[in-house]
Amino acid sequence: MIKVVLLGGGNVAFHLAKALLKASDVALIQVYNRSLKAIKHLEKETKITNKLNQLESADLYIISVSDVAIAEISKKIKNTSSLVVHTSGSVRMDLLKNHKRQGVFYPLQTFSKARKLSFQKIPVCLESNNNKDLQLLEKLARSISKDIYFIDSIQRQQIHTAAVFVNNFVNHLYHISTSICEKHQIQPEILHPLLKETTEKALKIPAFEAQTGPARRGDIETINKHLSILSDNHKEIYKLLSQSIAHTYGKKL
Amino acid sequence: MIKVVLLGGGNVAFHLAKALLKASDVALIQVYNRSLKAIKHLEKETKITNKLNQLESADLYIISVSDVAIAEISKKIKNTSSLVVHTSGSVRMDLLKNHKRQGVFYPLQTFSKARKLSFQKIPVCLESNNNKDLQLLEKLARSISKDIYFIDSIQRQQIHTAAVFVNNFVNHLYHISTSICEKHQIQPEILHPLLKETTEKALKIPAFEAQTGPARRGDIETINKHLSILSDNHKEIYKLLSQSIAHTYGKKL
Repeated sequence: MIKVVLLGGGNVAFHLAKALLKASDVALIQVYNRSLKAIKHLEKETKITNKLNQLESADLYIISVSDVAIAEISKKIKNTSSLVVHTSGSVRMDLLKNHKRQGVFYPLQTFSKARKLSFQKIPVCLESNNNKDLQLLEKLARSISKDIYFIDSIQRQQIHTAAVFVNNFVNHLYHISTSICEKHQIQPEILHPLLKETTEKALKIPAFEAQTGPARRGDIETINKHLSILSDNHKEIYKLLSQSIAHTYGKKL
Repeated sequence: MIKVVLLGGGNVAFHLAKALLKASDVALIQVYNRSLKAIKHLEKETKITNKLNQLESADLYIISVSDVAIAEISKKIKNTSSLVVHTSGSVRMDLLKNHKRQGVFYPLQTFSKARKLSFQKIPVCLESNNNKDLQLLEKLARSISKDIYFIDSIQRQQIHTAAVFVNNFVNHLYHISTSICEKHQIQPEILHPLLKETTEKALKIPAFEAQTGPARRGDIETINKHLSILSDNHKEIYKLLSQSIAHTYGKKL
């Protein structure tokens, strides 16, 4: 049985707590958050606290707070013989340097409290500064997910950057398309089947092959039509992405 | 029974032919393409031809060829009493001006021959220069899809532009994320669950609300970390999209 204390009450911690409570061979013995409100829903299932000097003794402390708060929380964990990990995609493991046994447990997904997620399908990126702890993390990870990766801090940084393209930027393009529709009294839902098929296709065939459209064809006439109806901000994005696509396929615009 | 001649052998025509052959109240009596090879698979189910002077007499001619070829094909259709439509998102209806009865039948989806698609779920944008023909188009459209919209040439241009953001640009971001992973010996599949959830979320809640990430938070430290590891081309895209996100949420970078 791995005894775990989870620190955090944000979106990742919310889903992680739920998964850990369901896992066999894992005992989530306490959840800390600076405000109790965000973790109050857990009080029937585990101990909750907002006091860092009242942390239970555990095998593993999982710090799942915003990047800027990780180092500070890490310093407040006085049990220095246990393994301490964070869940961030962009923070180096050695930020936890006040602990001899460090690690990272980074679930690669976009989390919001309102969305149900099966942790089983979430890729978890593991790292530790020693092999034994990596095995401990692997055991924990396999108890909640089927998709485990061993990833060092440098690779994790790359993955986090790629994730920004796939999530943050894609979502922003969705927002832009919605605002184009709404500006012209068109229901944005008209684009939903296209959105779905675009993503389903990319899961099946490499995006490089799936690419279509005026920029790939070098179809300047259509591109100019589109540019003529876009706002300045959207025009800039349209131009840059079209140039990047054209460049990828050896076309000139 | 609506007698239809389909002109074209590309990806849209390929899927449209299949759907029309299955539809009740529709007889696809002939398919034309300049090369027979692309339509040879249809010869057991309908007449095929590569000669524009041998077109059958029909109620409706559907021109489903590349944008630049539409006007030329339209002129070659000598039966000027029938309805003639094209299937393009970005070409105005009045390009068919040599025909008195004009229309547009624009299926809003990304088509490739290798992907199976249910036409039932594809939004079809209809337009005509007279109400009676719009009703004819609606009848045809309802026989193959459940998702019908009446859209004029100006709105269609907007939709087509929005579709470029949702399909071409999103796919290109997928390609960029794949190339970041491959450059650093990371399996691109690690991003697949994120890609899926990003899209599924956007189908449920407005993208404006779903937005997360460093640009939305105004988290310059993380943004700089990401920029430091990107190639120049990707850096430019990262910067511009981050600025656009920050701007959308009143943040400064």
